[in-house]
Amino acid sequence: MHKELRAGLIGVTGYTGMELARLLTAHPHMRLNFTASRSEAGKRLGDHYPFLEKLPGADLVIRQPDAKQAAAQCDIVFLAVPHGAAMDFAADLRAEGLAVVDLSADFRLRDVDVFEHWYATTHSQRTLLQEAVYGLPELYGEAIAGAKLVANPGCYPTASILGLYAALKHGFISSEDLVIDAKSGTSGAGRKAAVSTLFCEVHDSFRAYNLVKHRHTPEIEQELSLLAGAPVCLSFNPHLLPIDRGIHATIYAKLKGEPTLDEIHAAHVECWKDAPWVRMLPKDGLPETRQVRGTMFCDIGLALDPRTKRLIICSVIDNLCRGASGQALANANLMCGLPVDCGLVQAPLMP
Amino acid sequence: MHKELRAGLIGVTGYTGMELARLLTAHPHMRLNFTASRSEAGKRLGDHYPFLEKLPGADLVIRQPDAKQAAAQCDIVFLAVPHGAAMDFAADLRAEGLAVVDLSADFRLRDVDVFEHWYATTHSQRTLLQEAVYGLPELYGEAIAGAKLVANPGCYPTASILGLYAALKHGFISSEDLVIDAKSGTSGAGRKAAVSTLFCEVHDSFRAYNLVKHRHTPEIEQELSLLAGAPVCLSFNPHLLPIDRGIHATIYAKLKGEPTLDEIHAAHVECWKDAPWVRMLPKDGLPETRQVRGTMFCDIGLALDPRTKRLIICSVIDNLCRGASGQALANANLMCGLPVDCGLVQAPLMP
Amino acid sequence: MHKELRAGLIGVTGYTGMELARLLTAHPHMRLNFTASRSEAGKRLGDHYPFLEKLPGADLVIRQPDAKQAAAQCDIVFLAVPHGAAMDFAADLRAEGLAVVDLSADFRLRDVDVFEHWYATTHSQRTLLQEAVYGLPELYGEAIAGAKLVANPGCYPTASILGLYAALKHGFISSEDLVIDAKSGTSGAGRKAAVSTLFCEVHDSFRAYNLVKHRHTPEIEQELSLLAGAPVCLSFNPHLLPIDRGIHATIYAKLKGEPTLDEIHAAHVECWKDAPWVRMLPKDGLPETRQVRGTMFCDIGLALDPRTKRLIICSVIDNLCRGASGQALANANLMCGLPVDCGLVQAPLMP
Amino acid sequence: MHKELRAGLIGVTGYTGMELARLLTAHPHMRLNFTASRSEAGKRLGDHYPFLEKLPGADLVIRQPDAKQAAAQCDIVFLAVPHGAAMDFAADLRAEGLAVVDLSADFRLRDVDVFEHWYATTHSQRTLLQEAVYGLPELYGEAIAGAKLVANPGCYPTASILGLYAALKHGFISSEDLVIDAKSGTSGAGRKAAVSTLFCEVHDSFRAYNLVKHRHTPEIEQELSLLAGAPVCLSFNPHLLPIDRGIHATIYAKLKGEPTLDEIHAAHVECWKDAPWVRMLPKDGLPETRQVRGTMFCDIGLALDPRTKRLIICSVIDNLCRGASGQALANANLMCGLPVDCGLVQAPLMP
Repeated sequence: MHKELRAGLIGVTGYTGMELARLLTAHPHMRLNFTASRSEAGKRLGDHYPFLEKLPGADLVIRQPDAKQAAAQCDIVFLAVPHGAAMDFAADLRAEGLAVVDLSADFRLRDVDVFEHWYATTHSQRTLLQEAVYGLPELYGEAIAGAKLVANPGCYPTASILGLYAALKHGFISSEDLVIDAKSGTSGAGRKAAVSTLFCEVHDSFRAYNLVKHRHTPEIEQELSLLAGAPVCLSFNPHLLPIDRGIHATIYAKLKGEPTLDEIHAAHVECWKDAPWVRMLPKDGLPETRQVRGTMFCDIGLALDPRTKRLIICSVIDNLCRGASGQALANANLMCGLPVDCGLVQAPLMP
Repeated sequence: MHKELRAGLIGVTGYTGMELARLLTAHPHMRLNFTASRSEAGKRLGDHYPFLEKLPGADLVIRQPDAKQAAAQCDIVFLAVPHGAAMDFAADLRAEGLAVVDLSADFRLRDVDVFEHWYATTHSQRTLLQEAVYGLPELYGEAIAGAKLVANPGCYPTASILGLYAALKHGFISSEDLVIDAKSGTSGAGRKAAVSTLFCEVHDSFRAYNLVKHRHTPEIEQELSLLAGAPVCLSFNPHLLPIDRGIHATIYAKLKGEPTLDEIHAAHVECWKDAPWVRMLPKDGLPETRQVRGTMFCDIGLALDPRTKRLIICSVIDNLCRGASGQALANANLMCGLPVDCGLVQAPLMP
Repeated sequence: MHKELRAGLIGVTGYTGMELARLLTAHPHMRLNFTASRSEAGKRLGDHYPFLEKLPGADLVIRQPDAKQAAAQCDIVFLAVPHGAAMDFAADLRAEGLAVVDLSADFRLRDVDVFEHWYATTHSQRTLLQEAVYGLPELYGEAIAGAKLVANPGCYPTASILGLYAALKHGFISSEDLVIDAKSGTSGAGRKAAVSTLFCEVHDSFRAYNLVKHRHTPEIEQELSLLAGAPVCLSFNPHLLPIDRGIHATIYAKLKGEPTLDEIHAAHVECWKDAPWVRMLPKDGLPETRQVRGTMFCDIGLALDPRTKRLIICSVIDNLCRGASGQALANANLMCGLPVDCGLVQAPLMP
Repeated sequence: MHKELRAGLIGVTGYTGMELARLLTAHPHMRLNFTASRSEAGKRLGDHYPFLEKLPGADLVIRQPDAKQAAAQCDIVFLAVPHGAAMDFAADLRAEGLAVVDLSADFRLRDVDVFEHWYATTHSQRTLLQEAVYGLPELYGEAIAGAKLVANPGCYPTASILGLYAALKHGFISSEDLVIDAKSGTSGAGRKAAVSTLFCEVHDSFRAYNLVKHRHTPEIEQELSLLAGAPVCLSFNPHLLPIDRGIHATIYAKLKGEPTLDEIHAAHVECWKDAPWVRMLPKDGLPETRQVRGTMFCDIGLALDPRTKRLIICSVIDNLCRGASGQALANANLMCGLPVDCGLVQAPLMP
């Protein structure tokens, strides 16, 4: 029998905080015991999030962020604050001995120079950066289980890395000339008031953004380089979808040799057969974002183009659950000695 | 410790069958053990519903509908087939001694003449109709617990009756002159191929349909008449929303006497304080369909208009979960001696 | 041959300004010759509105609002600024002799006390208020043609008044006990950055707002009272639709006497047969917001409920075109001696 | 002064027929004078399309398709029938001497073997195929003006070819290794009743389809090969967007040499400066599908990735207007001696 673990959440105004609160209502061995927010301190959580009423956590009162208070009331803390703000929070929490899952980008890039270049800011916690583990459970499960600070992956990197993992690992594709055309639901843009994400600016429309300069590029390259055993430089380009949740990464890779689709598909099925959340579609199947809505699943479909000698990989996740808060909870499970999927066996909301 | 109950599902091609399959993946004491469909027999359930892969039930093979087979493999059966087709299925299943929750309208109307008038069809199971219990747990929990055949309420009636219950019960409003202006997500229109529910016919648009003649009218009137102790004749009018799930009933009622909003609101809070799923919004709050998405919640908000002496009640549910399959599962829980909310404590998917 | 009229637009950052710029690109005898905005002054209009590129008006430079400049460059000015701000602008423009169509609410309510009560502000231009004509062309075409200041109607009032006009006029319905359940697309909420109208807060959801206290209530009552020849006090309640454009007003009215649907429908057809934009659906037809998208049409459908003795009127418009900028242009046409529908014969964008 | 031209439309049940009816209401010199449909013959057009009421064309009666009748009543005929069915219709109409714009794929591929391979059908009108002109006005304006049979381009090819035209022409990019990741609104899937395009199957979701085997691939390759002067073999992959209208093609091309973004952008601006409908976004701008909604515009934005030496071209059109019926009307204009943009100067519907 597991004791009940107490979780803290710093940052409650964004969609990732909201999602973590949602997921923790269903966790059998972890409960939300502390929430903090500068702007909402003093409010009851159920008043801030009416959807939580009559569910666990609704009666918590939001506090000012404070490491000592967090330490007194939590076994583990989730940081759902913006990039740049997270690094010092993490240091304070670690100084109190707390286990931390940071949902921001502050500890994702191992090379501090790469971080400072892409994020155009100074990293104030270089030592702590060495300690952080990249929290993609399928790749780093053991290291995460032993970690005290986990850098929760970005949403696009999660979809991209899981999508490319098996094909790269088996050498079916070249690590050069990769193109990732990615599409994300609007919750990925956050919950700040802005004209560009108003309903009437997004609905019934579609557009690219941040072409060739999205900050998830070096994160994807870092992990693929490790996988490929050679520096990977790729083209990553995001688009905004008029949907709430979901990422669809369409990945274009050059074949090495002449593998058949049967071989490639079989290797993928084998690779992921014991993974709780990566689901290979049938050989002629393609994933849909709604099929993973609200879940940890990563659905993968393949197409092989003999004319252009390319493998096309479609990798689909829920950006808020698998791409942020659900993955953070999976990491917390591992860090606390629970099974990785504890409280995270959800069926997608269809339709 | 509860033994694991075996559930059967007859009818898998519609959204209510899909929703029941989804909900049963999370039930701690009941599992899907038998599915049947004329058109899909022979298929693996996971191939029919890819969203179920790596979840309980995916490996079931869909069978032809057959009462004896169902009896051999189930403790309880959910009927998710069209109106008219359900009544004889129910009789066959009852003849085998099975407990049945019928999601169709076939056993909802106690007065067979009213049924035959509104549904323009003959009822072939008049005796069985006497046995059926109307499955609204908040009103008929005890009777449901003792029933072998439960008529699962319609989606609009669920929202309307729960919305009006407390105000009628307390005599704050007249049972005459009620107007229910209801709006439903498109999943309520079913999953049949039809031009009128194509994406491009529904998206970015809104319309009324079936004004003054929707078949849920007599169902609402039946239950409100019982509540009011007098025949209720009301105006019920549905509209189609460009959303997947959700019903919003805006109910216009004439005040009796001069109650204040404070009094009315307090009576509602008191009335529902122990109900697991009915949530009163704060006095100045109004419900949103997304706040109940994927759940059993019925969220209720009030406004009092001193100028026109009306109480306006907004009652919101998820038409597929609370308004169909989730409510069916709640009824099955009661019929099987489980707590009503077993497996049904979900947080809404926000956003 | 008409000379080309020069129009001015004060206020370009909102959806009504945007819509006016769109409509003027297609006007054969009026062109946008002056635009002004405090926040955008100095910008080229095509840079502010990229959708205007390669269309008339793109090369205009946005100016600071200034009545003298406007007078030098315009024959008529559209005011697309917020309530409260419009009244003094209007006075300044009138002082320069300019014809003005005000899209705000500042001159809509004839009774200044009613205005000050509902808008909780002081009216600084009481004299000018006497001069203003309510700009609903079907009702006040002649007065508008002679006016120098037109108060452009609100979007909900336009749909509600046109919807009720024929039935009230013919005495088919009582002017008491009216209920208007109205639903509006999100563009009606304006283009200000706000969390509550972010895509992820509106999409796939539905909710009521401002129940029993929306400021369009007295405007509707004012016009219906004039029509009915007696004070009308009604229940008007708005809801927010996850669509860009469109208002659907569902109007519940008590029948007077026992008219048949045939009679009522025939009277409506006759009433609107020469109106360019009011379209009666067939007797069994109901309107859809998309059928009027981008146009001046008001589509009306009827249902008669013999059980509750009510007439239900569905009245549908595009809130931005018919409910704001298109109607403003129709008023400008009349004020300038052009046919009311000049430049305003558009087919809806379907789908 | 132009005489009024009489247009015929064969096929009225799909979205392209609907769009053509919409566009013709605004044409100053061409009117719909004949419509035909097997399934709808005998119906008044305004009853079939209620959105057309009070607009030109509503009173036409739909006829059975018949070449002689068409010849008696039309100067030019638009064929909006499925692939395979169009070729013989076209032959019959040409035999009557009629000018024909065929919206199907039947006459788009110059090489009949390529057609028969990709469409898996026999071409019954090989001689007529020689006569057909590919109807992309920016490329083939003169030939179209002299043609009697125009093959109206596919929607994806229109966006792709216009997107690549200037960069290929100027030699900035290689014609090898092109990847086109395309996304289309759901109207592109047609108006047939099908479960896969029901609202609840498309809304709030996103997916790829027909990867590596979409039939627009050879059409794009045909035109790019002519442009590049060498056979082009590319990767074209479509996705389904939960929007009504709009195509966004994200095109990945390898740079030749080391052109700067400034050079490439300037060349595009120059290339399209006199084109009525191709709009280059500013150097840091990216197109959005809504900015071309309902119009003939093709909006193009560029990004240059120095890290991967690729040019990324975003090309956006409205699939129904520019990608089908609007382009058909532009072709008809040219064939009839009218300016290409006659009746086609529309502002997009924003929002």
